[in-house]
Amino acid sequence: MEKFTISTSSRTQFIDITHEVSNAIGNTGITSGAATIYCPHTTGGITINEGADPAVKRDILHMLNSIVPWEADYRHMEGNSPAHIKTLLTGSSAQVIIENSRPCLGTWQRIFFCEYDGPRKRTVWVQAMGR
Amino acid sequence: MEKFTISTSSRTQFIDITHEVSNAIGNTGITSGAATIYCPHTTGGITINEGADPAVKRDILHMLNSIVPWEADYRHMEGNSPAHIKTLLTGSSAQVIIENSRPCLGTWQRIFFCEYDGPRKRTVWVQAMGR
Amino acid sequence: MEKFTISTSSRTQFIDITHEVSNAIGNTGITSGAATIYCPHTTGGITINEGADPAVKRDILHMLNSIVPWEADYRHMEGNSPAHIKTLLTGSSAQVIIENSRPCLGTWQRIFFCEYDGPRKRTVWVQAMGR
Repeated sequence: MEKFTISTSSRTQFIDITHEVSNAIGNTGITSGAATIYCPHTTGGITINEGADPAVKRDILHMLNSIVPWEADYRHMEGNSPAHIKTLLTGSSAQVIIENSRPCLGTWQRIFFCEYDGPRKRTVWVQAMGR
Repeated sequence: MEKFTISTSSRTQFIDITHEVSNAIGNTGITSGAATIYCPHTTGGITINEGADPAVKRDILHMLNSIVPWEADYRHMEGNSPAHIKTLLTGSSAQVIIENSRPCLGTWQRIFFCEYDGPRKRTVWVQAMGR
Repeated sequence: MEKFTISTSSRTQFIDITHEVSNAIGNTGITSGAATIYCPHTTGGITINEGADPAVKRDILHMLNSIVPWEADYRHMEGNSPAHIKTLLTGSSAQVIIENSRPCLGTWQRIFFCEYDGPRKRTVWVQAMGR
């Protein structure tokens, strides 16, 4: 498995990790197959969405914070239940198809690490499969 | 990678693509393994859910439109932020297990392309892995 | 494919299946690769989240029940549309990376079957890929 680390700077934040994921896949020598991009944290996730206009990231995070309010009838004493809920909604991993040793993405797609309880130092795992 | 295209006819819509996915998997010659069904668009997704009663699709879309309102404090000028948010909630891909050259689905399960910013012409990518 | 069954005891419930998934992966003989953990039901899902404090599970389910109300303008006569919607939000499968014949999880991560229309007897499918 390939690993890399990132540092987040806000409580909730999307970090574009497309470049790091591409490098990780290139390191494996797999030319055709698929890769799992995996978040080993329970208050973060991985998603694929538009990367061209920063307003898209802002709007997604803004609405997630509205859907899952910071204050509610939460029991978890650590106080970060909203982050755990956003992790369920987002998913802990994403899949990409590999062709020519590279992740295949649509024209507007970028791969994001989703920080829901930052700022923190985070690790991302990448497992490429195929030949 | 296998590819196929579909045309959607509404702003939000679930299209049953089980037949197309089965054909794509059959074309690969993979008899046992798993497949990634991937949406290369940032305002659509892939999900697996009930296909027998059309009311289920209607209820899911209706509630998604309630959870993610069309009008809110969005900044993305293209006006389709709700679609990007639904894409995060849904996921850009689904995984199915392959046995006997076919996708293994539960009794009531069907595979759906989720259109959140239609009508449009859309492409779906399928990568089968295994032997 | 490996399979195992579980029994749920509540209408909505998270069941820790990490042990069963680890055993299933061990049975395959795959030492390095990735596995798909798949729910063949349309009113349940698979997620990965914190397992240490039971309050986290409680808070996630409580908020999901708030986001997707039990009573709304649903048309599906079976009366379990909220369960189908939570299945879309959760996803029907999760991916884990395999190293040393075991699923790689973060320090706080556990694998959960998500029951959204229980109590029922449920089946989980596991497909491991790699070498």
